[in-house]
Amino acid sequence: MTDDVVVLRYGHRPGRDDRMTTHVGLTARALGADRVVLPDNAGQSAETIRDITDRFGGPFAVELRDDQRAYTRNWDGTVAHLTMYGERVQDVEADLRADSVASDTPLLVVVGGEKVPFDFYEAADYNVGVTNQPHSEVAGLAVFLDRLFEGEELEREWEGADRVVLPQETGKKVVDPGDLEREDGGE
Amino acid sequence: MTDDVVVLRYGHRPGRDDRMTTHVGLTARALGADRVVLPDNAGQSAETIRDITDRFGGPFAVELRDDQRAYTRNWDGTVAHLTMYGERVQDVEADLRADSVASDTPLLVVVGGEKVPFDFYEAADYNVGVTNQPHSEVAGLAVFLDRLFEGEELEREWEGADRVVLPQETGKKVVDPGDLEREDGGE
Repeated sequence: MTDDVVVLRYGHRPGRDDRMTTHVGLTARALGADRVVLPDNAGQSAETIRDITDRFGGPFAVELRDDQRAYTRNWDGTVAHLTMYGERVQDVEADLRADSVASDTPLLVVVGGEKVPFDFYEAADYNVGVTNQPHSEVAGLAVFLDRLFEGEELEREWEGADRVVLPQETGKKVVDPGDLEREDGGE
Repeated sequence: MTDDVVVLRYGHRPGRDDRMTTHVGLTARALGADRVVLPDNAGQSAETIRDITDRFGGPFAVELRDDQRAYTRNWDGTVAHLTMYGERVQDVEADLRADSVASDTPLLVVVGGEKVPFDFYEAADYNVGVTNQPHSEVAGLAVFLDRLFEGEELEREWEGADRVVLPQETGKKVVDPGDLEREDGGE
């Protein structure tokens, strides 16, 4: 896994979009990205994502910026823009992987809300559709990252967590990392 | 692909949860489920999902019910409950596929919001975590369905659509299905 997969969220209406933007950030974190760049009016979402990172571990960075277009245009690496109008993910994922994580080339993944300016389509090396159907930018991002990393992101270990969820057939088990080492140290 | 993968959404607060519940339904539709069951106070989300199905095609059914617990308990088939406390998706997906789509056994996929009652953990044949990290029920559902169907859901063809999005390297192209036959009939 590379150190440099960054998810950029374009567009945010405070209040109305708080949960979607938070979910974009938490999905980026959980599924292997290194950083999320949010619009600077999404401070509430940034706070929630940082709080989760403090509790459940990192490294994962959250950045607020007001120059999403320039940032994308000037990205030194590969740009993938997720859009239902783009090429089919199953058709481009191998090339996209070769141009990014497989060659240590930094990847910027642009996730729009509604009404993404044409600039982003033009700045993108790949416009990618996770289906050409309208659904959810969060769902699209999730499938995209799982395919980009070929599932390896699910094996990630987290640093600096103050709690760890242990997978259970039924019920909930949350331990602190110290207990985990004592319990599962022999694995 | 089986005819019988149903996504059940537990819990909905009108207003606050409208977009998340809509996205659960649209993700279920786009990624290969046959039907979504929503709480009966989620009429607004149901309407949006039906409207998308009318325009972009089906078949896909939306049902409103008020008996989510009994419906899950009495499901005649396999029940998978998505939860960050569950077993790792990468560990259980092969068994789960064998017990559902691969053996024509109907599958109910339970997607909670916050505070899912313990009944659902007990009624589930599989409690499944798409990571054991907090992120998004929409993201979890998306990765789950893509893995369940092993990507075949992306090849689905839609019936009764009044518009079709054609994948593009750059830009947007939407045609009506009649035009599509004339343009791409030779493929």
